[in-house]
Amino acid sequence: MSSIHQVPPRSWQTLQSLETPAAIIDVPRMRRNIQRMQSRMDNLGVRFRPHVKTSKCVDVARAQMQAGASGITVSTLKEAACFFEAGVTDILYAVAMVERKLPAALALRRRGCDLKIVTDCVTSARAIAAFGAQFGETFEVWIEVDTDGHRSGIRPDAPALLEVARVIHDGGATLGGVMTHAGSSYDFDTPDALAAIAEQERAGCVLAATRLRDAGLPCPVVSVGSTPTALAAVHLDGVTEVRAGVYVFFDLVMHNVGVCTTDDLALSVLTTVIGHQPDKGWAIVDAGWMAMSRDRGTQKQKHDFGYGQVCRIDGSPVAGYRLEGANQEHGILAREGDPDDNIVGRFPIGTLLRVMPNHACATGAQFPEYHALDPERDIAVWPRLHGW
Amino acid sequence: MSSIHQVPPRSWQTLQSLETPAAIIDVPRMRRNIQRMQSRMDNLGVRFRPHVKTSKCVDVARAQMQAGASGITVSTLKEAACFFEAGVTDILYAVAMVERKLPAALALRRRGCDLKIVTDCVTSARAIAAFGAQFGETFEVWIEVDTDGHRSGIRPDAPALLEVARVIHDGGATLGGVMTHAGSSYDFDTPDALAAIAEQERAGCVLAATRLRDAGLPCPVVSVGSTPTALAAVHLDGVTEVRAGVYVFFDLVMHNVGVCTTDDLALSVLTTVIGHQPDKGWAIVDAGWMAMSRDRGTQKQKHDFGYGQVCRIDGSPVAGYRLEGANQEHGILAREGDPDDNIVGRFPIGTLLRVMPNHACATGAQFPEYHALDPERDIAVWPRLHGW
Repeated sequence: MSSIHQVPPRSWQTLQSLETPAAIIDVPRMRRNIQRMQSRMDNLGVRFRPHVKTSKCVDVARAQMQAGASGITVSTLKEAACFFEAGVTDILYAVAMVERKLPAALALRRRGCDLKIVTDCVTSARAIAAFGAQFGETFEVWIEVDTDGHRSGIRPDAPALLEVARVIHDGGATLGGVMTHAGSSYDFDTPDALAAIAEQERAGCVLAATRLRDAGLPCPVVSVGSTPTALAAVHLDGVTEVRAGVYVFFDLVMHNVGVCTTDDLALSVLTTVIGHQPDKGWAIVDAGWMAMSRDRGTQKQKHDFGYGQVCRIDGSPVAGYRLEGANQEHGILAREGDPDDNIVGRFPIGTLLRVMPNHACATGAQFPEYHALDPERDIAVWPRLHGW
Repeated sequence: MSSIHQVPPRSWQTLQSLETPAAIIDVPRMRRNIQRMQSRMDNLGVRFRPHVKTSKCVDVARAQMQAGASGITVSTLKEAACFFEAGVTDILYAVAMVERKLPAALALRRRGCDLKIVTDCVTSARAIAAFGAQFGETFEVWIEVDTDGHRSGIRPDAPALLEVARVIHDGGATLGGVMTHAGSSYDFDTPDALAAIAEQERAGCVLAATRLRDAGLPCPVVSVGSTPTALAAVHLDGVTEVRAGVYVFFDLVMHNVGVCTTDDLALSVLTTVIGHQPDKGWAIVDAGWMAMSRDRGTQKQKHDFGYGQVCRIDGSPVAGYRLEGANQEHGILAREGDPDDNIVGRFPIGTLLRVMPNHACATGAQFPEYHALDPERDIAVWPRLHGW
């Protein structure tokens, strides 16, 4: 119960005025998460480029930049356009570029956005170089490196790395560096395993950079990151920047990975109890999967939180109570294990609760805006980007 | 391949102009689905009240109304407001009303919306009656009946049914009828089992209505429905109206339930191949879970489609290929079973594909708008409601 006192009771009471379901950001927790990551990156001697795909929110990104972030990472070109309009110029679009998206990238660069793009194949590298030559634009291209086999990228020791690099470099584009994302770090949950995957991510990306430089090619940037590896890395020798996204809010998946406690979770869904099935020990709430998302990321982890951990309106967890099931606009709240025979008395009709999500990126995406809860201010509405 | 000829090639070609990912509605299929359900309801002698939570789109609802629907069902009060502004007045808000949402319901009724609300408990029934008395508004209230134990509602034989009915009726509100939703019908996949759950839904709701009438209480409406039960019911004696939502698009879950074929699926996600991992037999596409949703509804069904069935740009399935995994903006396309050693040749960089979703309601929700593909028209943009 200690952490809840950072937000005084009058702020919780203002939650009473909101429609439910609503996505609530605990601003002091968010700022603490931002500061924790930025300090760690400062101490490790690397730049930090937060991934804004988690929040898709200019107000959140602004807090990250003010804390010392160097540019941002985006997952869509719509995010790039939105954050560029909000004043961010140093932007990495971290999904492999294809020919049909080059006109949108060109338009952003011509408006003054310092957009970096990535590739992991010769076909797209050639398309980027040719398109740049055709339109007189020198794209900055980073090569995506695969350090854990979970998704995209070229393996650090593969011949294709040099081949792609030469196509970029010789084709007149700027070879900006190498980047990797060890997304499989989400699968681990011990400090040793996390440190090992962080080292694997670092070493693989540095190897790729070394191979490029040894071949006489430029590689100024060596960019790595995921929230677990960023928080677990023992050192980052040879790395120039780190990227991470979900650390800004954290979530139950990250709690199970072991890089945060529930006291760090800055995003929750405000919900109202709308009914009961007393015989089953169920309370029905108005946060179904449309509010929580269908993400069941804790299902295979050490603790399955169902569709979310139930909390009091002050944000403190009600131990053992979770959303056990979800329909579109109905959440089924139940106690783990034996049914609660006092579910009606414990959660009467109309009770306001908050639910911590499995996956902050997915839950946030269900809402057009966040409600930012800050003890020093009225609740603020922070818009969130939707779509492509 | 036969069904694809309903949309001539020039319309597929116009898909080339769209950004990806995009949510595509095959309008002829949608109209056929609407006609199929409406004809069935007409033949069974009941009114039909489509649930617009699937599409959350005025253009889709308009097609349903033009085909003969009598009013609509909504899952949020924001939907009610949106569709009322678009000209629909007969609206059922099918999620249990609570006191704190009554001002929004009152505002809608005062603007002329014939909004019906539902309850399944004495506490909320009293709150509705008291609020109505205080503000001089006679709310029309339907009682939610639980015919399959999957979520909310009062069991048809429970004493609480009459208690709640009397609170509504004696409290000065209009007791409009009873409604139920046998959502557990999604768990079955044989005609006999579907007919049985449909009969259970019908009989339970009619029993509830009979008990009210026997007690001297009014019960003009007897409302049942889900897509599987609506399509499986042998007769609907005693029922006055049916509700269903997902039939308008259908999806892979409904395909597994057995109430449609893939030729009926009217919603798909247009996506671009952006990379490969040839050693693993993977193509990477730009439809990740942000586009497909995290819904894995086919996981426990007779055929697991992963995050979706891969189709050619004309909408025809590429048998055996599915999205096996998904990150936020990356989908991992693979063949079921053995890896495809010709994945690069089969799906070159830049290839446009369409992916059929597990759950149309969840996938649609990821997009701010649909792109409606109609052979007789240019592609139209149909906005979709987001949030609460």
